[in-house]
Amino acid sequence: MNAEQPIGFFDSGIGGLTVANAVLKALPNERIIYFGDSLHFPYGEKSAHEIQSYSVKIAEYLLEQDCKCIVIACNTASASAYNAVKESVGNRAFVIDVIDPTVYYVKKYLAQIKNIGVIATRGTIKSGAYTKGLEQNCDNLNVISKATPLLAPMVEEGFINDEVSKAVISQYLSDSELQQIEAIVLACTHYPFLKPEIEEYYHHAVEVIDTPTVIAEYLKDKLGSNQLLSQSEEEFSAHQFIVSDLTETIQNNALRFFKHQFTLEERNIFD
Amino acid sequence: MNAEQPIGFFDSGIGGLTVANAVLKALPNERIIYFGDSLHFPYGEKSAHEIQSYSVKIAEYLLEQDCKCIVIACNTASASAYNAVKESVGNRAFVIDVIDPTVYYVKKYLAQIKNIGVIATRGTIKSGAYTKGLEQNCDNLNVISKATPLLAPMVEEGFINDEVSKAVISQYLSDSELQQIEAIVLACTHYPFLKPEIEEYYHHAVEVIDTPTVIAEYLKDKLGSNQLLSQSEEEFSAHQFIVSDLTETIQNNALRFFKHQFTLEERNIFD
Repeated sequence: MNAEQPIGFFDSGIGGLTVANAVLKALPNERIIYFGDSLHFPYGEKSAHEIQSYSVKIAEYLLEQDCKCIVIACNTASASAYNAVKESVGNRAFVIDVIDPTVYYVKKYLAQIKNIGVIATRGTIKSGAYTKGLEQNCDNLNVISKATPLLAPMVEEGFINDEVSKAVISQYLSDSELQQIEAIVLACTHYPFLKPEIEEYYHHAVEVIDTPTVIAEYLKDKLGSNQLLSQSEEEFSAHQFIVSDLTETIQNNALRFFKHQFTLEERNIFD
Repeated sequence: MNAEQPIGFFDSGIGGLTVANAVLKALPNERIIYFGDSLHFPYGEKSAHEIQSYSVKIAEYLLEQDCKCIVIACNTASASAYNAVKESVGNRAFVIDVIDPTVYYVKKYLAQIKNIGVIATRGTIKSGAYTKGLEQNCDNLNVISKATPLLAPMVEEGFINDEVSKAVISQYLSDSELQQIEAIVLACTHYPFLKPEIEEYYHHAVEVIDTPTVIAEYLKDKLGSNQLLSQSEEEFSAHQFIVSDLTETIQNNALRFFKHQFTLEERNIFD
């Protein structure tokens, strides 16, 4: 591995672009390759076996593209396929999921807190991956997790910072079980768009942790300590954005999810 | 065919239960068999060929259960597979979709209006089926269609008659193009739950047409004029509710969609 190799990202769709976006913000010298498996979107209702099979195949593709690191920018794949991908990749590249960096962040910076909330899709909450990771690694931490299934479609449809998002956020967060929390994990790639509103809901008295930013910082540490941080500046056109099935809806949504003008390419690596 | 045979309904999920519900309200003597193809849910992103293949198979199953009439209680299947199902069923049963009854209703009762709105999922709007049906059959009628994709997940998540539903409805219906309408078609099986709020939004000055009620009336006419209305009273337990893949989420949602206590059975007819 060398510092000038690209970083690969994958997700079942375009939500993981928020992770790629945060990484480019923290590490502007890096070159990225993003793979959205829109052909099999959403992963939520698929079996662990299927998700592992898709994930390993995508990881292999990203290795063929010479990636030094593979970021599983998808909560469902992180919960179901992290070990399978790590095993398959071996020492050819680093593999990072979305859960470990969050656990690491909470353990390192929020050691004093007693109650933390986790909001995510129904699938992520049901997997229990965040609760398990946080409770196993952080002493005396009480994790209150809550499925907030309308938030992702709401963001996808562009309801951000308006009457709708305010009403939905307030409805979910007014849950009595969430009243004692000192921090809250936004455990879905779609939720960073809602961070300012959620902070405001809590009058800035609760720390709002958005996973993309935490992953970007974790990646910076990890690559830095292994002398793998790129030193050369990159043109934006050097990045690659690939989906396994390109539709008009995806192209339009992708532009909303990523703060740069770019074009998606279609590549079906599964045939 | 005879009057004591059951009526079959199918949908890609449980949304079509609102149609079955409206039919039982209008025709309490009828016995129904409902088939929700949850294994292949949602149909929205599938090819017309696939949807036709599933629909024909389900229709065949409903015929084996001796149905006198098959109601395609699904907008996507109505737009893609109505002709295929009619052809396959032939004269063995009546086939009714969700679009024809709406067109018939507007032509018969709203002949004087000039502007009508249609709201539905992105897929239904994109198919153009309602616009085409209405414009071909109703003289000088201007159809303004608008995709309202957050409404279905919102209803599914139980946001009805609250701050959230009020904000979302208001956001969608305040669209300037919809300001001249005299009637609006709720062209999605999920939307009847929102009828009172939408009527209120318009201060009852716009006629709100919910497709399940219109389908039930159409069916009543059709069966009545063919002497096929059941005369014998039915126990609720005589009805059958089948899905091709039974999960906890479906069972819970189904109870919200249908105003009776009942149990879903699983049957995979596709193997």
